[in-house]
Amino acid sequence: MCGDGLSNGHNGTTSGVNGGFQQPPNPYTGPSDYLSNVANFKIIESTLREGEQFANAYFDTETKIKIAKALDAFGVDYIELTSPVASEQSFQDCKAIASLGLKAKILTHIRCDIGDAKKAVEAGVDGVDVVIGTSKHLREHSHGKDMEYITKTALEVIEYIKGTGLEVRFSSEDSFRSDLVDLLSLYKAVDKIGVNRVGIADTVGCASPRQVYELVRTLRGVVSCDIETHFHHDTGCSIANAFCALEAGATHVDTSVLGIGERNGITPLGGFLARMVVSAPDYVKSKYKLHMIKEIEDLVAEAVQVNTPFNNPITGFCAFTHKAGIHAKAILNNPSTYEILNPADFGLTRYVHFASRLTGWNAVKTRVQQLGLNMTDDQCKEVTAKIKALADVRPIAIDDADSIIRTYHLELPHAEKIAANGHAEHVVA
Amino acid sequence: MCGDGLSNGHNGTTSGVNGGFQQPPNPYTGPSDYLSNVANFKIIESTLREGEQFANAYFDTETKIKIAKALDAFGVDYIELTSPVASEQSFQDCKAIASLGLKAKILTHIRCDIGDAKKAVEAGVDGVDVVIGTSKHLREHSHGKDMEYITKTALEVIEYIKGTGLEVRFSSEDSFRSDLVDLLSLYKAVDKIGVNRVGIADTVGCASPRQVYELVRTLRGVVSCDIETHFHHDTGCSIANAFCALEAGATHVDTSVLGIGERNGITPLGGFLARMVVSAPDYVKSKYKLHMIKEIEDLVAEAVQVNTPFNNPITGFCAFTHKAGIHAKAILNNPSTYEILNPADFGLTRYVHFASRLTGWNAVKTRVQQLGLNMTDDQCKEVTAKIKALADVRPIAIDDADSIIRTYHLELPHAEKIAANGHAEHVVA
Repeated sequence: MCGDGLSNGHNGTTSGVNGGFQQPPNPYTGPSDYLSNVANFKIIESTLREGEQFANAYFDTETKIKIAKALDAFGVDYIELTSPVASEQSFQDCKAIASLGLKAKILTHIRCDIGDAKKAVEAGVDGVDVVIGTSKHLREHSHGKDMEYITKTALEVIEYIKGTGLEVRFSSEDSFRSDLVDLLSLYKAVDKIGVNRVGIADTVGCASPRQVYELVRTLRGVVSCDIETHFHHDTGCSIANAFCALEAGATHVDTSVLGIGERNGITPLGGFLARMVVSAPDYVKSKYKLHMIKEIEDLVAEAVQVNTPFNNPITGFCAFTHKAGIHAKAILNNPSTYEILNPADFGLTRYVHFASRLTGWNAVKTRVQQLGLNMTDDQCKEVTAKIKALADVRPIAIDDADSIIRTYHLELPHAEKIAANGHAEHVVA
Repeated sequence: MCGDGLSNGHNGTTSGVNGGFQQPPNPYTGPSDYLSNVANFKIIESTLREGEQFANAYFDTETKIKIAKALDAFGVDYIELTSPVASEQSFQDCKAIASLGLKAKILTHIRCDIGDAKKAVEAGVDGVDVVIGTSKHLREHSHGKDMEYITKTALEVIEYIKGTGLEVRFSSEDSFRSDLVDLLSLYKAVDKIGVNRVGIADTVGCASPRQVYELVRTLRGVVSCDIETHFHHDTGCSIANAFCALEAGATHVDTSVLGIGERNGITPLGGFLARMVVSAPDYVKSKYKLHMIKEIEDLVAEAVQVNTPFNNPITGFCAFTHKAGIHAKAILNNPSTYEILNPADFGLTRYVHFASRLTGWNAVKTRVQQLGLNMTDDQCKEVTAKIKALADVRPIAIDDADSIIRTYHLELPHAEKIAANGHAEHVVA
């Protein structure tokens, strides 16, 4: 029953106050900082690269094209594809997507290797994302190269790609466990020869927000090119880390739909935009088609056979559901009391629970109005007590609560049963 | 097929290198700061309060007791329960759990009201968490009280609870949208009369990590009592915010199992401890029984009828799964290359994919050894190419990959078919 998006089957009622939603004064934008890119960032959408490394992912060409087109329509700036060296089909898929004529720039992601770079250029992409491990851990246990060799190869590969006229990014892997001086020296060298972006990657998913802020802010003082960031989710901080990177001056954030990727994935596109729309509402709403988030997530969830997590920002089935009495009461007065995200921005609706032991009479009063009944506040309070008494004994459905309300209303003296009006539009189908 | 924890049904192999796992030098602990409580925090587990506000939650008494006992065995410091004023059964449940004789202290959570406070004391709990909305939004649209009235009532309620010998916490709701001076004045006043803790709550789930750090650090300079923090997950930052609060000097963090709560919930117990074990491994491992996380999550997931999110930290089905060739190669050499969390700490195992188009020959070599076959590196590379060619055409299962390996091995010249040994223990059942 979960993970199916906002369903009609729950015990509650959508509120009718969407139309009157007022964005309150926003304390979440913070003091302005001229290096911050919170209101001026670009998304490198990597569902078709990082996402293909997700355990369940097997994208055939048709699915890849469908996903690429949806992301393009949504408004992402870049779409990153699996290396054309990974397999023959990966190469063919790169070529196919690069030739679709999308507005988004098409990137592919390769090892720092001249052979890989040639194959990438041959695939017809707009830009190439080059990566190499720079931490001691990866230098010893993965490729076995030293920093001198890494720098030399990086310069060669970047020069080659630039020579073909393509955009080129150079990134370290496992940046947060790399030696800071090594890292800055390397980035300074590639910046000097005109790389378009350097990348910071929390490959093992363990960086913390203030650590991210400090590294990116330091790097911002060393290079003049753009700064791309990539955060894994192992310790649950991928959205927060991306946000702090932008505060520090990063320009690009890697995302994937639902965050799919190696292990438990990276910064999720939807959750990231939930974060950003709070801090930069005008930028985000004018640039990205937020109402498409649910359909894009559904497309990818189906392709990799997962359910949207019940607690997903925006699209989790309960993201806009309110239950406790004091919450429900305030939400019905003014949604901004317990919501800053406006569900209408995402083509969704809020939902106020009233059939539980935690219910308050204000939520019940709204339901009474939805049922077209006319009752005084005291009567609403009395019927609320009856609903709570039953909810104390067993889980109750919307029908149970409605029955209690209708029965109570039926037994009222005739004079008080005046039909109310004007609220029928709030009733859940 | 998802959300069922680590399953045996996937196309891969658990790695046999757990025993040799070495925690690498850890750059994630950061410079020490004498105000930081990253290695000295307490958990207030609120599954039975905040969690009961989750849309799907209906806990009967037996389930509440089961959850409370599991959390106590796990080692949480406090267990917070729904207000005894919410309903008659809520009161009875408070009394029942308070009388279990658990090691964890039992709290209940009430409005800032003397009647609520009396009922809480009557329920026999160890401490009372008092809350009132202080933001303009909540003062106008929820309870309609001004700051003078709030302060007066707060002092009365706190004095009363202290007089009974119980622990008392005073928290604002929606702290980040409250006027800073109002907030600090109120907290200073309640600190002065000896409140045990003050609480900061991001009730609408929109605070960002550095904003949290700054507010808590400021508050740390104003009050001498403990500081509790409570973060909602609407913008995906609940774990990161809790971490930054501890860095700033907060002492207590509210969690719930799987993060269940109002809307899409709060800081999840498991994800929070994934974050903390990286930064304070000794403290976390000595205090909490991490191997119980999965069973506690399963217990609560069943009670509220949700699936564990596929991408949940630690227990998501792919949290320790590695797929890309370069990842798999390095992981097989040394797990710390792409993992800082050690799955063994949580009673789980890692899993290296080899049946996909992204596979590398190192992963295949491990599988060859697991099958008890003896092949040279060149032969492993050759059979890897065959596996990738098939995986390019359709999703392949472990059996497909094994068939390719066995067929290839069968066709080798007899002299090369020497049985290998010592690796059978790695084979997935």
